Amino acid sequence: MSLEGIRVIDLTRIIAGPFCTQLLADQGAEVIKIETTKGDPLREQGEKVHGLSWYFASYNRNKKSIVIDLRSPEGKNVLEKLLRTADVLVENFRPGVLDAMGFEDEVLKKSNPNLIVCSISGFGADGPYANRPAFDFIAQALSGFMSVNGERDGPPLRSGLPISDMVVGLYGAFAVSSTLARNTIGKKAGFRRIDVSLTDTMISLLSFQAANFFATGNSPMRSGNDHQLVSPYGIFETNDGLLAIAPSNNETYKKLLTALNLESLSKDKRIDSNRKRMGNRSLIRKLIEPVLKSKNSAYWIEKLNAAGVPAGPILSIPEVFEDPQVQHREMAVNIDHGPRGSVKMLGFPIKFMGEATYNPNAAPELGEHTVEVLQNLKFQEDEIEQLLKKSIIKQYSANNQE
Amino acid sequence: MSLEGIRVIDLTRIIAGPFCTQLLADQGAEVIKIETTKGDPLREQGEKVHGLSWYFASYNRNKKSIVIDLRSPEGKNVLEKLLRTADVLVENFRPGVLDAMGFEDEVLKKSNPNLIVCSISGFGADGPYANRPAFDFIAQALSGFMSVNGERDGPPLRSGLPISDMVVGLYGAFAVSSTLARNTIGKKAGFRRIDVSLTDTMISLLSFQAANFFATGNSPMRSGNDHQLVSPYGIFETNDGLLAIAPSNNETYKKLLTALNLESLSKDKRIDSNRKRMGNRSLIRKLIEPVLKSKNSAYWIEKLNAAGVPAGPILSIPEVFEDPQVQHREMAVNIDHGPRGSVKMLGFPIKFMGEATYNPNAAPELGEHTVEVLQNLKFQEDEIEQLLKKSIIKQYSANNQE
Repeated sequence: MSLEGIRVIDLTRIIAGPFCTQLLADQGAEVIKIETTKGDPLREQGEKVHGLSWYFASYNRNKKSIVIDLRSPEGKNVLEKLLRTADVLVENFRPGVLDAMGFEDEVLKKSNPNLIVCSISGFGADGPYANRPAFDFIAQALSGFMSVNGERDGPPLRSGLPISDMVVGLYGAFAVSSTLARNTIGKKAGFRRIDVSLTDTMISLLSFQAANFFATGNSPMRSGNDHQLVSPYGIFETNDGLLAIAPSNNETYKKLLTALNLESLSKDKRIDSNRKRMGNRSLIRKLIEPVLKSKNSAYWIEKLNAAGVPAGPILSIPEVFEDPQVQHREMAVNIDHGPRGSVKMLGFPIKFMGEATYNPNAAPELGEHTVEVLQNLKFQEDEIEQLLKKSIIKQYSANNQE
Repeated sequence: MSLEGIRVIDLTRIIAGPFCTQLLADQGAEVIKIETTKGDPLREQGEKVHGLSWYFASYNRNKKSIVIDLRSPEGKNVLEKLLRTADVLVENFRPGVLDAMGFEDEVLKKSNPNLIVCSISGFGADGPYANRPAFDFIAQALSGFMSVNGERDGPPLRSGLPISDMVVGLYGAFAVSSTLARNTIGKKAGFRRIDVSLTDTMISLLSFQAANFFATGNSPMRSGNDHQLVSPYGIFETNDGLLAIAPSNNETYKKLLTALNLESLSKDKRIDSNRKRMGNRSLIRKLIEPVLKSKNSAYWIEKLNAAGVPAGPILSIPEVFEDPQVQHREMAVNIDHGPRGSVKMLGFPIKFMGEATYNPNAAPELGEHTVEVLQNLKFQEDEIEQLLKKSIIKQYSANNQE
């Protein structure tokens, strides 16, 4: 495992932050999640089985959970000791909250001069919106993503997934691991504080929409399933459903015509260049859809791909996990959660060829590892007893849970 | 720069691969892009200014370009020598193509026993679809993303951005850098080959949609701008436009009512729980939208955020780059490209607090660094002359360009 031996202290909750630390855990880091006595609010969201939210379980697999009251000086002392032993701290409080808790950069640096701190926020650590409350939807709206997502004549549309939470989590994990990698070339990174936001990271994905706007000043429009640079491209009907076809260039367009037995169209003056085809999308559809409708999707997927034309089904979520390729790639895994049962969750998409399949460990119960972690920090048994008695820390036991 | 001193050999084209290596370059790696004499096809896509595609420039900033004919033994020899000096090789050929070129794992490993190879493909290196041609749209369709993106009553919808290209690029950069980081704990990673696909990485983002399906067996549906777990949530009209509002929980819902002077609604039995509100979305809209319509968006953004309710504008792409927060965060940068002029492109969203702003270098002309790179590999001047004469390599010069 690539990040084996790396210790991450995880002060994050909900999705963006926990996804970031899940990625680090999935690459082998030891992630110690610090929770309040109430626990990460995600423990109460989404569908539960045997009292366990599978949404929570999925984002918190492979982590340890310890419960500390960080408002108390004794609790802060535990965190400070943990940070001394850590490589990374990840947090997604609103900017300034960590400082207000007494963990300003100077304090963090003093505890651990090589600590890498990754702060995840809605809009970044500075600037006029820094203190606004953050939410995926707002970042999708502010970043311009929604302005180009949706039907041509419909309203701006959010993504069906909390995409900005995912994207900032990925950027955070990349930023942390590339900073860790600095040490490979013999230069300690020293104390560094990474500042990534939902909004900035979404903006960074605007790709050709931004490039073409910068180059021309023209505002990109929503275009539904039509690609703004290529035609034909989109969803077409077959005799048993819908098919996604994406011939990306002229050469592939010709392969498509051949596969459809429509070679004659290559000489049709109305559609003999990509530019003309972009202006004649409905004509193209009228010419090729009748042929597609003569056979089923499976037939065309086989035939078009063999001809070198990217084509595939549009799968619902249940269909995704029945697909032979997705099953082959083990993109759903079952993880034993003891008395909570076996939890099905998404697989890890980073595969290493020739290496064994990676099977994550279960998500932790709230405070499952509190005593174990404190013992490893060399807290004495009587100190731990005192902290438990004063409710500064809490240890999970099967008896005190619903 | 975190990855300073890391050398990446880049055999990628178009978007997914070049985005991966752009991320590595933006973190300081030296990226040597190997192109054919025709060059990366992206050089010809998107809007051009002074003959330069700004789409290409954006994804290839900070890289060196060398032109080698990899079909010739002499060209393969140059690549082999480069790999000996490299830490990472990134490629997005179809699975098997690198092998067919003579660069099987055994050969790569022999050249460089510590090389990290990152292979990016549509469906992964193995499984029944491994050899299908790949395209972002097909991965969006196959991964289930499109099935949950779109209007409630509309068709499955692709994202307005080439989202799977972006996401796999991010995963690739994370996978490479976390594997590089392995060395920080004193264990050489050895030869490793990373295998990431557009489809797998998109599936990994299905988050609550997948978790709830796994837990209940119910297939998630498209829900337009409505959140499947929260209400109210969405786009609302003000007196001068649209406003995105996302109160994420009961507490924030109460803050919203207070800010709207609608506290009395908190006792309305029809909508006094999130569950009831989810079933009564149109009633909620009818109750709160008239108040929102009494003032403009700027008023409500100020007021709601101050009250702790996430709210923001839905910006078009031009508006994004006029926004004061986006400007403060330097999410658009101007990079001098000499005779091609100054190119505006997206900024890098990973910021390091207290460190200077990062300014990327220009994207390379096709073959701009060929001779320089070969000289550094200790090729003799007469060898280089021979390779140029035989068109095995090509060096850019301002005179031989259009």
